[in-house]
Amino acid sequence: MSLTTEQEITAEAMRRWSTAQDPRLARLLPLLVKHLHAFAREARPSMAEWMAGIEFLTATGRICDDKRQEMILLSDVLGLSMLTVMLNDPRTADATPSTVLGPFHIDASPGAERGSDLADGIDGARLHVRGSVRGIDGAPIGNALLDFWQADHEGFYEAQLGSEEARLRAILSTDERGGFDFWTVMPRGYTIPLDGPVGDLICRTTISHYRPAHLHFIVSAPGYIPLVTHIFPSGADYLDNDVVFGVRQELIVPFEPVAASPDGIGAHHEVQYDFVLTPAAEVAVQPRR
Amino acid sequence: MSLTTEQEITAEAMRRWSTAQDPRLARLLPLLVKHLHAFAREARPSMAEWMAGIEFLTATGRICDDKRQEMILLSDVLGLSMLTVMLNDPRTADATPSTVLGPFHIDASPGAERGSDLADGIDGARLHVRGSVRGIDGAPIGNALLDFWQADHEGFYEAQLGSEEARLRAILSTDERGGFDFWTVMPRGYTIPLDGPVGDLICRTTISHYRPAHLHFIVSAPGYIPLVTHIFPSGADYLDNDVVFGVRQELIVPFEPVAASPDGIGAHHEVQYDFVLTPAAEVAVQPRR
Ligand SMILES: [Fe+2]
Ligand SMILES: [Fe+2]
Repeated sequence: MSLTTEQEITAEAMRRWSTAQDPRLARLLPLLVKHLHAFAREARPSMAEWMAGIEFLTATGRICDDKRQEMILLSDVLGLSMLTVMLNDPRTADATPSTVLGPFHIDASPGAERGSDLADGIDGARLHVRGSVRGIDGAPIGNALLDFWQADHEGFYEAQLGSEEARLRAILSTDERGGFDFWTVMPRGYTIPLDGPVGDLICRTTISHYRPAHLHFIVSAPGYIPLVTHIFPSGADYLDNDVVFGVRQELIVPFEPVAASPDGIGAHHEVQYDFVLTPAAEVAVQPRR
Repeated sequence: MSLTTEQEITAEAMRRWSTAQDPRLARLLPLLVKHLHAFAREARPSMAEWMAGIEFLTATGRICDDKRQEMILLSDVLGLSMLTVMLNDPRTADATPSTVLGPFHIDASPGAERGSDLADGIDGARLHVRGSVRGIDGAPIGNALLDFWQADHEGFYEAQLGSEEARLRAILSTDERGGFDFWTVMPRGYTIPLDGPVGDLICRTTISHYRPAHLHFIVSAPGYIPLVTHIFPSGADYLDNDVVFGVRQELIVPFEPVAASPDGIGAHHEVQYDFVLTPAAEVAVQPRR
Protein backbone atom coordinates (compact mmCIF):
# COMPACT_ATOMS: atom_id res chain seq x y z
CA MET A 1 0.00 0.00 0.00
CA SER A 2 1.41 3.38 -0.97
CA LEU A 3 0.53 6.39 1.15
CA THR A 4 1.15 9.93 0.14
CA THR A 5 3.80 12.00 1.85
CA GLU A 6 4.12 15.76 1.72
CA GLN A 7 6.79 15.35 -0.96
CA GLU A 8 4.61 13.00 -3.01
CA ILE A 9 1.15 14.53 -2.67
CA THR A 10 1.54 16.92 -5.60
CA ALA A 11 2.70 14.19 -7.96
CA GLU A 12 -0.08 11.86 -6.80
CA ALA A 13 -2.79 14.52 -7.14
CA MET A 14 -1.47 15.42 -10.62
CA ARG A 15 -1.48 11.75 -11.58
CA ARG A 16 -5.07 11.28 -10.40
CA TRP A 17 -6.43 14.30 -12.29
CA SER A 18 -4.57 13.30 -15.44
CA THR A 19 -7.08 10.45 -15.71
CA ALA A 20 -9.78 12.81 -17.03
CA GLN A 21 -11.34 11.27 -20.14
CA ASP A 22 -11.21 14.55 -22.03
CA PRO A 23 -7.60 15.06 -23.12
CA ARG A 24 -7.69 18.81 -22.65
CA LEU A 25 -9.10 18.42 -19.12
CA ALA A 26 -6.43 15.76 -18.46
CA ARG A 27 -3.89 18.42 -19.36
CA LEU A 28 -5.48 21.38 -17.51
CA LEU A 29 -6.33 19.75 -14.17
CA PRO A 30 -2.83 18.44 -13.33
CA LEU A 31 -1.44 21.89 -14.20
CA LEU A 32 -4.00 23.46 -11.86
CA VAL A 33 -2.88 21.08 -9.08
CA LYS A 34 0.77 21.81 -9.82
CA HIS A 35 0.42 25.58 -9.57
CA LEU A 36 -2.07 25.53 -6.67
CA HIS A 37 0.31 23.34 -4.67
CA ALA A 38 3.27 25.54 -5.64
CA PHE A 39 1.30 28.49 -4.24
CA ALA A 40 0.65 26.61 -0.97
CA ARG A 41 4.28 25.52 -0.66
CA GLU A 42 5.55 29.06 -1.16
CA ALA A 43 2.84 30.89 0.82
CA ARG A 44 2.58 28.26 3.63
CA PRO A 45 -0.94 29.32 4.66
CA SER A 46 -1.93 28.49 8.21
CA MET A 47 -5.07 26.36 8.58
CA ALA A 48 -6.91 29.57 9.55
CA GLU A 49 -5.67 31.31 6.39
CA TRP A 50 -6.69 28.28 4.30
CA MET A 51 -10.17 28.48 5.84
CA ALA A 52 -10.32 32.25 5.18
CA GLY A 53 -9.55 31.51 1.52
CA ILE A 54 -12.26 28.84 1.40
CA GLU A 55 -14.76 31.27 2.93
CA PHE A 56 -13.76 34.05 0.52
CA LEU A 57 -14.26 31.87 -2.57
CA THR A 58 -17.52 30.51 -1.17
CA ALA A 59 -18.87 34.02 -0.59
CA THR A 60 -17.70 35.09 -4.06
CA GLY A 61 -19.67 32.23 -5.61
CA ARG A 62 -22.72 32.70 -3.43
CA ILE A 63 -23.22 36.37 -4.33
CA CYS A 64 -23.41 35.55 -8.06
CA ASP A 65 -26.76 35.49 -9.83
CA ASP A 66 -28.19 36.25 -13.29
CA LYS A 67 -27.19 39.90 -12.96
CA ARG A 68 -23.97 39.71 -11.03
CA GLN A 69 -20.80 37.73 -11.73
CA GLU A 70 -18.44 38.31 -8.81
CA MET A 71 -16.17 35.40 -9.83
CA ILE A 72 -15.43 37.16 -13.17
CA LEU A 73 -14.78 40.32 -11.16
CA LEU A 74 -12.29 38.42 -9.01
CA SER A 75 -10.55 37.10 -12.11
CA ASP A 76 -10.55 40.63 -13.53
CA VAL A 77 -8.97 42.33 -10.52
CA LEU A 78 -6.32 39.61 -10.18
CA GLY A 79 -5.28 40.30 -13.78
CA LEU A 80 -6.23 36.75 -14.80
CA SER A 81 -8.93 37.80 -17.27
CA MET A 82 -6.71 40.27 -19.11
CA LEU A 83 -3.75 37.86 -19.10
CA THR A 84 -6.00 35.21 -20.63
CA VAL A 85 -7.21 37.71 -23.24
CA MET A 86 -3.61 38.58 -24.09
CA LEU A 87 -2.56 34.93 -24.30
CA ASN A 88 -5.47 34.27 -26.66
CA ASP A 89 -5.19 37.41 -28.74
CA PRO A 90 -5.03 36.08 -32.30
CA ARG A 91 -4.28 39.36 -33.96
CA THR A 92 -1.50 40.07 -36.34
CA ALA A 93 0.50 43.20 -35.60
CA ASP A 94 -1.79 45.50 -37.58
CA ALA A 95 -5.10 44.33 -36.14
CA THR A 96 -7.04 45.98 -33.31
CA PRO A 97 -6.12 44.50 -29.92
CA SER A 98 -8.61 42.63 -27.74
CA THR A 99 -9.52 43.45 -24.19
CA VAL A 100 -11.74 42.00 -21.46
CA LEU A 101 -15.39 41.20 -22.11
CA GLY A 102 -16.45 42.37 -18.66
CA PRO A 103 -19.60 41.29 -16.83
CA PHE A 104 -22.15 43.58 -18.53
CA HIS A 105 -22.50 42.07 -21.99
CA ILE A 106 -25.92 40.64 -22.87
CA ASP A 107 -26.49 38.17 -25.67
CA ALA A 108 -29.32 39.74 -27.63
CA SER A 109 -29.05 43.49 -27.92
CA PRO A 110 -31.58 45.23 -30.16
CA GLY A 111 -30.64 45.95 -33.76
CA ALA A 112 -30.15 49.58 -34.81
CA GLU A 113 -29.99 51.30 -38.18
CA ARG A 114 -27.01 53.32 -39.33
CA GLY A 115 -27.18 56.81 -37.83
CA SER A 116 -29.48 55.74 -34.98
CA ASP A 117 -29.52 57.67 -31.73
CA LEU A 118 -29.20 55.19 -28.85
CA ALA A 119 -29.38 57.96 -26.24
CA ASP A 120 -33.14 58.32 -26.36
CA GLY A 121 -34.12 60.09 -23.15
CA ILE A 122 -30.68 59.87 -21.53
CA ASP A 123 -29.41 63.21 -20.38
CA GLY A 124 -25.66 62.98 -21.12
CA ALA A 125 -23.29 64.87 -23.42
CA ARG A 126 -23.99 63.86 -27.04
CA LEU A 127 -21.48 61.59 -28.73
CA HIS A 128 -21.24 60.66 -32.40
CA VAL A 129 -19.41 57.36 -32.98
CA ARG A 130 -18.31 56.57 -36.48
CA GLY A 131 -15.68 54.58 -38.28
CA SER A 132 -15.14 51.47 -40.30
CA VAL A 133 -14.35 47.81 -40.15
CA ARG A 134 -11.63 46.47 -42.37
CA GLY A 135 -9.22 43.56 -42.71
CA ILE A 136 -5.48 43.77 -42.12
CA ASP A 137 -5.07 44.19 -45.89
CA GLY A 138 -7.04 47.44 -45.62
CA ALA A 139 -10.03 46.11 -47.52
CA PRO A 140 -13.36 47.33 -46.08
CA ILE A 141 -15.63 44.65 -44.61
CA GLY A 142 -19.28 45.23 -45.51
CA ASN A 143 -22.01 43.72 -43.36
CA ALA A 144 -19.70 43.30 -40.40
CA LEU A 145 -21.62 43.28 -37.10
CA LEU A 146 -20.83 45.60 -34.21
CA ASP A 147 -22.30 44.48 -30.91
CA PHE A 148 -22.05 47.67 -28.84
CA TRP A 149 -22.68 48.46 -25.15
CA GLN A 150 -21.62 51.11 -22.67
CA ALA A 151 -22.22 52.63 -19.25
CA ASP A 152 -24.12 55.92 -19.23
CA HIS A 153 -22.94 59.46 -18.43
CA GLU A 154 -23.04 58.59 -14.73
CA GLY A 155 -21.18 55.28 -15.12
CA PHE A 156 -24.18 52.96 -14.78
CA TYR A 157 -25.36 49.99 -16.81
CA GLU A 158 -29.11 49.31 -16.77
CA ALA A 159 -28.74 46.34 -14.41
CA GLN A 160 -27.23 48.68 -11.84
CA LEU A 161 -30.30 50.91 -12.14
CA GLY A 162 -32.57 47.94 -11.49
CA SER A 163 -33.81 47.90 -15.10
CA GLU A 164 -34.33 44.88 -17.32
CA GLU A 165 -34.65 46.94 -20.50
CA ALA A 166 -31.64 47.12 -22.83
CA ARG A 167 -30.17 50.63 -22.76
CA LEU A 168 -27.18 52.10 -24.60
CA ARG A 169 -26.77 48.81 -26.44
CA ALA A 170 -27.20 47.93 -30.08
CA ILE A 171 -26.22 45.58 -32.84
CA LEU A 172 -25.22 47.59 -35.92
CA SER A 173 -23.88 46.50 -39.27
CA THR A 174 -21.45 48.14 -41.65
CA ASP A 175 -22.40 49.35 -45.09
CA GLU A 176 -20.78 48.07 -48.28
CA ARG A 177 -17.83 50.41 -47.73
CA GLY A 178 -17.30 49.05 -44.19
CA GLY A 179 -18.65 52.20 -42.55
CA PHE A 180 -20.79 52.63 -39.45
CA ASP A 181 -22.06 55.47 -37.33
CA PHE A 182 -24.45 56.08 -34.46
CA TRP A 183 -25.22 58.56 -31.71
CA THR A 184 -25.02 57.96 -28.00
CA VAL A 185 -23.82 59.75 -24.83
CA MET A 186 -20.30 60.25 -23.51
CA PRO A 187 -19.51 57.29 -21.21
CA ARG A 188 -18.19 57.83 -17.72
CA GLY A 189 -15.65 55.76 -15.80
CA TYR A 190 -17.04 53.76 -12.94
CA THR A 191 -16.12 51.87 -9.82
CA ILE A 192 -16.39 48.12 -9.71
CA PRO A 193 -19.07 47.02 -7.23
CA LEU A 194 -17.67 47.32 -3.71
CA ASP A 195 -20.50 45.68 -1.80
CA GLY A 196 -19.26 42.10 -2.26
CA PRO A 197 -16.23 39.98 -1.29
CA VAL A 198 -14.06 41.37 -4.12
CA GLY A 199 -14.84 44.95 -3.09
CA ASP A 200 -14.04 44.03 0.53
CA LEU A 201 -10.67 42.71 -0.57
CA ILE A 202 -9.88 45.73 -2.76
CA CYS A 203 -10.74 47.98 0.19
CA ARG A 204 -8.05 46.27 2.25
CA THR A 205 -5.45 47.58 -0.25
CA THR A 206 -4.68 50.95 -1.82
CA ILE A 207 -5.70 49.67 -5.28
CA SER A 208 -7.84 52.14 -7.26
CA HIS A 209 -11.27 50.57 -7.76
CA TYR A 210 -12.13 52.51 -10.93
CA ARG A 211 -12.29 51.75 -14.61
CA PRO A 212 -11.66 54.54 -17.14
CA ALA A 213 -14.60 55.56 -19.38
CA HIS A 214 -14.99 53.20 -22.36
CA LEU A 215 -17.24 51.90 -25.11
CA HIS A 216 -17.53 48.11 -25.54
CA PHE A 217 -17.60 46.38 -28.92
CA ILE A 218 -17.63 42.85 -30.24
CA VAL A 219 -16.87 43.17 -33.96
CA SER A 220 -17.46 40.14 -36.15
CA ALA A 221 -17.67 39.18 -39.80
CA PRO A 222 -17.60 35.85 -41.65
CA GLY A 223 -14.03 34.72 -42.25
CA TYR A 224 -12.54 36.87 -39.48
CA ILE A 225 -11.71 36.27 -35.81
CA PRO A 226 -14.34 38.00 -33.65
CA LEU A 227 -12.83 40.96 -31.82
CA VAL A 228 -13.82 41.69 -28.20
CA THR A 229 -12.58 45.17 -27.36
CA HIS A 230 -13.20 48.65 -25.94
CA ILE A 231 -12.30 52.15 -27.02
CA PHE A 232 -11.24 54.69 -24.40
CA PRO A 233 -11.31 58.52 -24.64
CA SER A 234 -7.81 59.93 -24.51
CA GLY A 235 -7.26 61.93 -21.34
CA ALA A 236 -9.85 59.94 -19.36
CA ASP A 237 -9.21 59.37 -15.66
CA TYR A 238 -7.81 55.99 -14.59
CA LEU A 239 -6.33 55.06 -17.99
CA ASP A 240 -3.05 54.24 -16.28
CA ASN A 241 -4.52 52.22 -13.42
CA ASP A 242 -7.63 50.48 -14.74
CA VAL A 243 -8.64 48.11 -11.93
CA VAL A 244 -9.14 45.28 -14.46
CA PHE A 245 -5.95 45.95 -16.48
CA GLY A 246 -8.03 46.40 -19.66
CA VAL A 247 -6.38 49.45 -21.30
CA ARG A 248 -4.15 49.06 -24.35
CA GLN A 249 -2.46 51.94 -26.13
CA GLU A 250 -4.09 51.34 -29.53
CA LEU A 251 -7.54 51.57 -27.94
CA ILE A 252 -7.11 55.12 -26.60
CA VAL A 253 -8.46 57.68 -29.08
CA PRO A 254 -9.62 61.31 -29.04
CA PHE A 255 -13.31 61.95 -28.37
CA GLU A 256 -13.19 65.44 -29.96
CA PRO A 257 -15.59 68.29 -29.14
CA VAL A 258 -17.51 69.51 -32.21
CA ALA A 259 -19.17 72.93 -32.22
CA ALA A 260 -22.83 73.32 -33.19
CA SER A 261 -23.19 73.52 -36.97
CA PRO A 262 -25.42 75.87 -39.02
CA ASP A 263 -27.46 72.93 -40.32
CA GLY A 264 -28.88 72.30 -36.84
CA ILE A 265 -26.63 69.62 -35.34
CA GLY A 266 -25.87 70.78 -31.81
CA ALA A 267 -22.52 70.80 -30.01
CA HIS A 268 -21.33 67.26 -29.36
CA HIS A 269 -18.28 65.00 -29.20
CA GLU A 270 -17.16 62.77 -32.00
CA VAL A 271 -14.99 59.68 -32.04
CA GLN A 272 -13.74 57.93 -35.15
CA TYR A 273 -12.39 54.38 -34.96
CA ASP A 274 -11.38 51.89 -37.62
CA PHE A 275 -11.55 48.34 -36.36
CA VAL A 276 -9.07 46.04 -38.06
CA LEU A 277 -9.93 42.34 -38.01
CA THR A 278 -7.63 39.34 -38.43
CA PRO A 279 -8.74 36.83 -41.07
CA ALA A 280 -9.43 33.42 -39.53
CA ALA A 281 -6.88 31.87 -41.91
CA GLU A 282 -4.14 34.17 -40.59
CA VAL A 283 -4.15 32.66 -37.13
CA ALA A 284 -1.11 30.51 -36.55
CA VAL A 285 -2.18 27.17 -35.16
CA GLN A 286 -0.57 27.00 -31.75
CA PRO A 287 -0.02 23.38 -30.83
CA ARG A 288 -1.44 22.54 -27.42
CA ARG A 289 1.53 21.58 -25.32
CA MET B 1 1.31 56.81 -18.85
CA SER B 2 2.37 53.20 -18.37
CA LEU B 3 0.15 50.49 -19.80
CA THR B 4 0.48 46.86 -18.96
CA THR B 5 1.77 44.42 -21.55
CA GLU B 6 1.43 40.66 -21.42
CA GLN B 7 5.00 40.50 -20.11
CA GLU B 8 4.33 43.09 -17.42
CA ILE B 9 0.83 42.22 -16.24
CA THR B 10 1.95 39.68 -13.64
CA ALA B 11 4.46 42.07 -12.07
CA GLU B 12 1.92 44.91 -12.09
CA ALA B 13 -0.84 42.76 -10.52
CA MET B 14 1.61 41.51 -7.87
CA ARG B 15 2.66 45.09 -7.15
CA ARG B 16 -0.94 46.25 -6.76
CA TRP B 17 -1.92 43.46 -4.35
CA SER B 18 1.22 43.98 -2.30
CA THR B 19 -0.40 47.24 -1.12
CA ALA B 20 -2.69 45.34 1.29
CA GLN B 21 -2.52 47.03 4.70
CA ASP B 22 -2.21 43.70 6.50
CA PRO B 23 1.39 42.51 6.02
CA ARG B 24 0.43 38.85 5.78
CA LEU B 25 -2.22 39.62 3.13
CA ALA B 26 0.37 41.78 1.34
CA ARG B 27 2.54 38.66 1.20
CA LEU B 28 -0.17 36.12 0.29
CA LEU B 29 -2.03 38.00 -2.45
CA PRO B 30 0.98 38.68 -4.72
CA LEU B 31 1.94 35.00 -4.38
CA LEU B 32 -1.59 34.03 -5.37
CA VAL B 33 -1.31 36.26 -8.46
CA LYS B 34 2.12 34.86 -9.28
CA HIS B 35 1.03 31.22 -9.21
CA LEU B 36 -2.37 31.85 -10.82
CA HIS B 37 -0.68 33.65 -13.71
CA ALA B 38 1.96 30.90 -13.96
CA PHE B 39 -0.90 28.42 -14.31
CA ALA B 40 -2.50 30.52 -17.08
CA ARG B 41 0.81 30.94 -18.91
CA GLU B 42 1.51 27.21 -18.86
CA ALA B 43 -2.06 25.98 -19.46
CA ARG B 44 -2.96 28.70 -22.00
CA PRO B 45 -6.74 28.36 -21.44
CA SER B 46 -8.95 29.49 -24.30
CA MET B 47 -11.52 32.16 -23.42
CA ALA B 48 -14.14 29.37 -23.41
CA GLU B 49 -12.04 27.32 -20.98
CA TRP B 50 -11.54 30.40 -18.79
CA MET B 51 -15.32 30.87 -18.74
CA ALA B 52 -15.86 27.19 -17.91
CA GLY B 53 -13.52 27.62 -14.94
CA ILE B 54 -15.42 30.74 -13.81
CA GLU B 55 -18.70 28.86 -14.08
CA PHE B 56 -17.32 25.85 -12.19
CA LEU B 57 -16.10 27.95 -9.26
CA THR B 58 -19.35 29.93 -9.23
CA ALA B 59 -21.43 26.74 -9.06
CA THR B 60 -19.13 25.36 -6.35
CA GLY B 61 -19.73 28.46 -4.23
CA ARG B 62 -23.44 28.64 -4.94
CA ILE B 63 -24.18 25.07 -3.77
CA CYS B 64 -22.66 25.77 -0.34
CA ASP B 65 -24.92 26.36 2.65
CA ASP B 66 -24.88 25.73 6.42
CA LYS B 67 -24.78 21.98 5.86
CA ARG B 68 -22.67 21.66 2.76
CA GLN B 69 -19.21 23.01 2.01
CA GLU B 70 -18.40 22.14 -1.60
CA MET B 71 -15.42 24.55 -1.71
CA ILE B 72 -13.70 22.56 1.06
CA LEU B 73 -14.53 19.41 -0.90
CA LEU B 74 -12.85 20.92 -3.97
CA SER B 75 -9.77 21.79 -1.91
CA ASP B 76 -9.83 18.24 -0.48
CA VAL B 77 -9.97 16.41 -3.81
CA LEU B 78 -7.26 18.62 -5.33
CA GLY B 79 -4.97 17.61 -2.44
CA LEU B 80 -4.74 21.22 -1.27
CA SER B 81 -6.33 20.59 2.14
CA MET B 82 -4.03 17.68 2.99
CA LEU B 83 -0.98 19.52 1.65
CA THR B 84 -1.86 22.48 3.89
CA VAL B 85 -2.31 20.13 6.86
CA MET B 86 1.10 18.59 6.17
CA LEU B 87 2.78 21.98 5.77
CA ASN B 88 1.29 23.06 9.12
CA ASP B 89 1.83 19.82 11.01
CA PRO B 90 3.67 20.99 14.12
CA ARG B 91 4.46 17.54 15.45
CA THR B 92 7.79 16.23 16.47
CA ALA B 93 8.71 12.81 15.08
CA ASP B 94 7.06 10.87 17.90
CA ALA B 95 3.72 12.68 17.95
CA THR B 96 0.52 11.52 16.26
CA PRO B 97 0.19 12.95 12.73
CA SER B 98 -2.60 15.33 11.72
CA THR B 99 -5.02 14.84 8.90
CA VAL B 100 -7.88 16.77 7.28
CA LEU B 101 -10.73 18.20 9.37
CA GLY B 102 -13.31 17.35 6.71
CA PRO B 103 -16.68 19.05 6.28
CA PHE B 104 -18.66 17.18 8.98
CA HIS B 105 -17.28 18.60 12.23
CA ILE B 106 -19.70 20.57 14.40
CA ASP B 107 -18.62 22.98 17.08
CA ALA B 108 -20.61 21.87 20.09
CA SER B 109 -20.92 18.11 20.36
CA PRO B 110 -22.57 16.77 23.53
CA GLY B 111 -20.35 15.74 26.44
CA ALA B 112 -20.14 12.04 27.31
CA GLU B 113 -18.90 10.17 30.38
CA ARG B 114 -16.14 7.61 30.25
CA GLY B 115 -17.51 4.27 29.09
CA SER B 116 -20.57 5.84 27.40
CA ASP B 117 -22.30 4.11 24.56
CA LEU B 118 -22.77 6.60 21.70
CA ALA B 119 -24.51 4.02 19.51
CA ASP B 120 -27.89 4.32 21.19
CA GLY B 121 -30.40 2.90 18.74
CA ILE B 122 -27.95 2.56 15.84
CA ASP B 123 -27.90 -0.90 14.40
CA GLY B 124 -24.21 -1.37 13.50
CA ALA B 125 -21.49 -3.75 14.67
CA ARG B 126 -20.41 -2.79 18.22
CA LEU B 127 -17.07 -1.08 18.62
CA HIS B 128 -15.17 -0.35 21.83
CA VAL B 129 -12.71 2.54 21.47
CA ARG B 130 -10.11 2.97 24.16
CA GLY B 131 -6.66 4.37 24.65
CA SER B 132 -4.81 7.26 26.14
CA VAL B 133 -3.50 10.73 25.53
CA ARG B 134 0.10 11.47 26.40
CA GLY B 135 2.91 13.88 25.59
CA ILE B 136 5.95 13.03 23.50
CA ASP B 137 7.81 12.40 26.76
CA GLY B 138 5.38 9.56 27.48
CA ALA B 139 3.73 11.34 30.41
CA PRO B 140 -0.06 10.78 30.51
CA ILE B 141 -2.24 13.88 30.03
CA GLY B 142 -5.20 13.94 32.38
CA ASN B 143 -8.29 16.01 31.51
CA ALA B 144 -7.37 16.11 27.83
CA LEU B 145 -10.45 16.63 25.64
CA LEU B 146 -11.36 14.31 22.77
CA ASP B 147 -13.85 15.82 20.32
CA PHE B 148 -15.03 12.73 18.46
CA TRP B 149 -17.27 12.21 15.40
CA GLN B 150 -17.84 9.52 12.81
CA ALA B 151 -20.06 8.27 10.01
CA ASP B 152 -22.35 5.38 10.90
CA HIS B 153 -22.26 1.71 9.80
CA GLU B 154 -23.71 2.75 6.45
CA GLY B 155 -21.31 5.66 5.91
CA PHE B 156 -23.72 8.48 6.78
CA TYR B 157 -23.41 11.54 9.00
CA GLU B 158 -26.63 12.87 10.49
CA ALA B 159 -26.76 15.83 8.07
CA GLN B 160 -26.88 13.35 5.18
CA LEU B 161 -29.91 11.70 6.81
CA GLY B 162 -31.67 15.06 7.06
CA SER B 163 -31.28 15.17 10.84
CA GLU B 164 -30.27 18.14 12.96
CA GLU B 165 -29.60 16.04 16.06
CA ALA B 166 -25.98 15.23 16.96
CA ARG B 167 -25.34 11.51 16.41
CA LEU B 168 -22.17 9.46 16.90
CA ARG B 169 -20.46 12.55 18.27
CA ALA B 170 -19.18 13.32 21.74
CA ILE B 171 -16.72 15.34 23.75
CA LEU B 172 -14.91 13.07 26.21
CA SER B 173 -12.14 13.77 28.65
CA THR B 174 -9.28 11.61 29.86
CA ASP B 175 -8.91 10.45 33.44
CA GLU B 176 -5.89 11.31 35.60
CA ARG B 177 -3.91 8.49 33.94
CA GLY B 178 -4.70 9.88 30.49
CA GLY B 179 -7.13 7.08 29.69
CA PHE B 180 -10.41 7.19 27.76
CA ASP B 181 -12.93 4.68 26.45
CA PHE B 182 -16.35 4.65 24.89
CA TRP B 183 -18.61 2.45 22.79
CA THR B 184 -19.88 3.16 19.30
CA VAL B 185 -20.45 1.30 16.00
CA MET B 186 -17.93 0.26 13.37
CA PRO B 187 -17.65 3.13 10.83
CA ARG B 188 -18.01 2.51 7.13
CA GLY B 189 -16.17 4.19 4.26
CA TYR B 190 -18.23 6.52 2.15
CA THR B 191 -18.37 8.34 -1.13
CA ILE B 192 -17.96 12.08 -1.26
CA PRO B 193 -21.19 13.76 -2.45
CA LEU B 194 -21.45 13.34 -6.22
CA ASP B 195 -24.49 15.56 -6.84
CA GLY B 196 -22.52 18.83 -7.06
CA PRO B 197 -19.84 20.40 -9.29
CA VAL B 198 -16.98 18.53 -7.57
CA GLY B 199 -18.76 15.20 -8.04
CA ASP B 200 -19.37 16.10 -11.69
CA LEU B 201 -15.67 16.76 -12.14
CA ILE B 202 -14.60 13.55 -10.36
CA CYS B 203 -16.99 11.61 -12.62
CA ARG B 204 -15.13 12.90 -15.67
CA THR B 205 -12.02 11.05 -14.41
CA THR B 206 -11.30 7.53 -13.17
CA ILE B 207 -10.53 8.83 -9.65
CA SER B 208 -12.09 6.71 -6.88
CA HIS B 209 -14.66 8.86 -5.06
CA TYR B 210 -14.45 6.96 -1.74
CA ARG B 211 -12.94 7.58 1.64
CA PRO B 212 -11.85 4.63 3.77
CA ALA B 213 -13.71 4.05 7.06
CA HIS B 214 -12.41 6.31 9.84
CA LEU B 215 -13.06 7.87 13.23
CA HIS B 216 -12.46 11.63 13.61
CA PHE B 217 -10.80 13.19 16.65
CA ILE B 218 -9.66 16.61 17.76
CA VAL B 219 -7.49 16.00 20.81
CA SER B 220 -6.56 19.00 22.94
CA ALA B 221 -5.07 19.83 26.31
CA PRO B 222 -3.65 23.02 27.85
CA GLY B 223 0.00 23.46 26.89
CA TYR B 224 -0.21 21.18 23.83
CA ILE B 225 -0.86 21.78 20.13
CA PRO B 226 -4.43 20.64 19.32
CA LEU B 227 -4.37 17.54 17.12
CA VAL B 228 -6.90 17.15 14.27
CA THR B 229 -6.76 13.56 13.11
CA HIS B 230 -8.52 10.30 12.19
CA ILE B 231 -7.90 6.67 12.93
CA PHE B 232 -8.49 4.08 10.19
CA PRO B 233 -9.14 0.33 10.59
CA SER B 234 -6.30 -1.69 9.08
CA GLY B 235 -7.49 -3.63 6.05
CA ALA B 236 -10.26 -1.11 5.24
CA ASP B 237 -11.13 -0.51 1.59
CA TYR B 238 -9.70 2.62 -0.07
CA LEU B 239 -6.82 3.12 2.37
CA ASP B 240 -4.45 3.41 -0.58
CA ASN B 241 -6.59 5.78 -2.63
CA ASP B 242 -8.51 7.99 -0.21
CA VAL B 243 -10.14 10.62 -2.44
CA VAL B 244 -9.03 13.39 -0.03
CA PHE B 245 -5.45 12.07 0.51
CA GLY B 246 -6.08 11.86 4.28
CA VAL B 247 -4.48 8.49 5.19
CA ARG B 248 -1.16 8.35 7.03
CA GLN B 249 0.56 5.13 8.05
CA GLU B 250 0.62 5.87 11.79
CA LEU B 251 -3.17 6.34 11.78
CA ILE B 252 -3.98 2.82 10.52
CA VAL B 253 -4.60 0.45 13.42
CA PRO B 254 -6.31 -2.91 13.97
CA PHE B 255 -10.00 -2.88 14.92
CA GLU B 256 -9.86 -6.39 16.43
CA PRO B 257 -12.82 -8.73 16.80
CA VAL B 258 -13.48 -9.72 20.43
CA ALA B 259 -15.60 -12.77 21.25
CA ALA B 260 -18.53 -12.56 23.65
CA SER B 261 -17.30 -12.82 27.25
CA PRO B 262 -18.85 -14.78 30.13
CA ASP B 263 -19.63 -11.56 32.02
CA GLY B 264 -22.22 -10.59 29.43
CA ILE B 265 -20.37 -8.31 27.03
CA GLY B 266 -21.36 -9.47 23.55
CA ALA B 267 -19.12 -10.00 20.56
CA HIS B 268 -17.68 -6.70 19.35
CA HIS B 269 -14.63 -5.03 17.87
CA GLU B 270 -12.06 -3.14 19.84
CA VAL B 271 -9.55 -0.49 18.89
CA GLN B 272 -6.83 0.87 21.13
CA TYR B 273 -5.08 4.14 20.26
CA ASP B 274 -2.63 6.29 22.16
CA PHE B 275 -2.67 9.88 20.96
CA VAL B 276 0.67 11.61 21.40
CA LEU B 277 0.56 15.41 21.60
CA THR B 278 3.30 17.93 20.93
CA PRO B 279 3.86 20.48 23.71
CA ALA B 280 3.22 24.02 22.48
CA ALA B 281 6.74 24.99 23.56
CA GLU B 282 8.28 22.29 21.32
CA VAL B 283 7.11 23.90 18.12
CA ALA B 284 9.96 25.56 16.33
CA VAL B 285 8.95 29.08 15.41
CA GLN B 286 8.98 29.11 11.63
CA PRO B 287 9.71 32.62 10.45
CA ARG B 288 7.20 33.81 7.86
CA ARG B 289 9.18 34.30 4.73
FE1 LIG C 1 -17.78 48.41 -19.06
FE1 LIG D 1 -15.42 11.67 7.82
